[in-house]
Amino acid sequence: MTSKHIVYHIPVCPFSQRLEILLALRGQTDAVEFRVVDITKPRDPELLAKTRGTTALPVLETPDGRIIKESLVILRFLDEALAGPTLRRGDPVEHAIESMLVAKEGPFTTAGYLFVLNQDRDRRDEFNDKMLSLYRDLNDFLAHWNPDGTWLFDDFGLAEAVFTPMFKRFWFLDYYEGFELPDGDDYARVRTWRDACMAHPATGQVSEEEIVKLYYDYALGAGNGALVKGREMSSFAFEPHWRDRPWPPRAKYDGTASDRDLGLIA
Amino acid sequence: MTSKHIVYHIPVCPFSQRLEILLALRGQTDAVEFRVVDITKPRDPELLAKTRGTTALPVLETPDGRIIKESLVILRFLDEALAGPTLRRGDPVEHAIESMLVAKEGPFTTAGYLFVLNQDRDRRDEFNDKMLSLYRDLNDFLAHWNPDGTWLFDDFGLAEAVFTPMFKRFWFLDYYEGFELPDGDDYARVRTWRDACMAHPATGQVSEEEIVKLYYDYALGAGNGALVKGREMSSFAFEPHWRDRPWPPRAKYDGTASDRDLGLIA
Repeated sequence: MTSKHIVYHIPVCPFSQRLEILLALRGQTDAVEFRVVDITKPRDPELLAKTRGTTALPVLETPDGRIIKESLVILRFLDEALAGPTLRRGDPVEHAIESMLVAKEGPFTTAGYLFVLNQDRDRRDEFNDKMLSLYRDLNDFLAHWNPDGTWLFDDFGLAEAVFTPMFKRFWFLDYYEGFELPDGDDYARVRTWRDACMAHPATGQVSEEEIVKLYYDYALGAGNGALVKGREMSSFAFEPHWRDRPWPPRAKYDGTASDRDLGLIA
Repeated sequence: MTSKHIVYHIPVCPFSQRLEILLALRGQTDAVEFRVVDITKPRDPELLAKTRGTTALPVLETPDGRIIKESLVILRFLDEALAGPTLRRGDPVEHAIESMLVAKEGPFTTAGYLFVLNQDRDRRDEFNDKMLSLYRDLNDFLAHWNPDGTWLFDDFGLAEAVFTPMFKRFWFLDYYEGFELPDGDDYARVRTWRDACMAHPATGQVSEEEIVKLYYDYALGAGNGALVKGREMSSFAFEPHWRDRPWPPRAKYDGTASDRDLGLIA
């Protein structure tokens, strides 16, 4: 038994980056011990017993051994359980407003992952349009509730902690799909928000280079550590370190580069 | 401007029944004014302006005119905003536990609606199996956190308010699909919970007869007030009142009964 909360997580996972952002903002990075789970190996039986069969990460173990699952449940729990002022808005109406924005994250995340995973060149525009429609919806929401501001309210808050890891993840769309927000009023407010979220000092846990290199296999349709056909190494491999590998080719619809060209084998 | 919260809702909607259950449990049924929206008519432009184009219900309007959407966001907002002890657990870990259970409601609801809407007799068992798997998951959850109890904790709480309207809705599965929970340990704990939820005095807003009669068109594949082919009246019609109509035929895969046989026209 430990006096700290333990979070079991996959490195670079956006769902645990949220928790790191929260801890950084709350000035309590020591309140939680992060333990890395290697998803390329069979799951540790002890952890599997704790999670009672499910393998989704992150999970949090309280000091008295209770297991909390679901990224957003863990995020809200930590925000409430840690000493000091919460990241969430104290006012019930304002908290409801940020919760409405948080509720938009699921479809947003799904759309971005489906887009990067798509292997049918003819469907590329359809995924791009879907993504843009969700950005317009975020734009509308922010423009309604805080038309002249940067954040949803007056500072980086709960909704920003939820969305920022996804904005950073979607560097893979910029790189592999040439995705970009069009100019104009339909996107101006969400662009301000997104840029501020990504530049905030509490959100520097990952870099564009890291995301682009690690998620190359996603761009080839292989999610969750699955191996791309014709390859022997995953782009998520811990070794060689991503810093020591070249940037992958952008042309995702042309088939995979070799393990060697990707710097995965010598 | 009014001093009350206003909820715009569809009568008999499970997503607003949650709010009614909360208000009943909190002893504050007067804290909210419910205004009925007739979904068979074009939406009132004033309400459409308030919701900025979206038509999903319920929505809540605060006394100062702010619009809160999303059933679970409204539920949590009211619980927090009303004077007196909350329905949610005060302890952060216990609240996280009930939130994990609440997170299971979305897939549960989706599975039940897809099952009742299904029109392919050959796929009936597949939908039935899916529903049973979700009940087993609820059983496992409850058996882990409170093996010998009735509720998730010691009384009807937030998770019960979320699930009970769905349990009652799914009377349509009992009636039109002959759905029932099998005997045995895989379902015993969730059966106890479900039965207690459905029998709780705060949850009597709808009856089995009402659900079965109103949702007949869902059993024929027509959701959201759509008209069944060969019929001129919706089973959701306000007139004639459902009490004055006969029980519909159970045999959903044999095609629709006539408006006359359903008591929808004289």
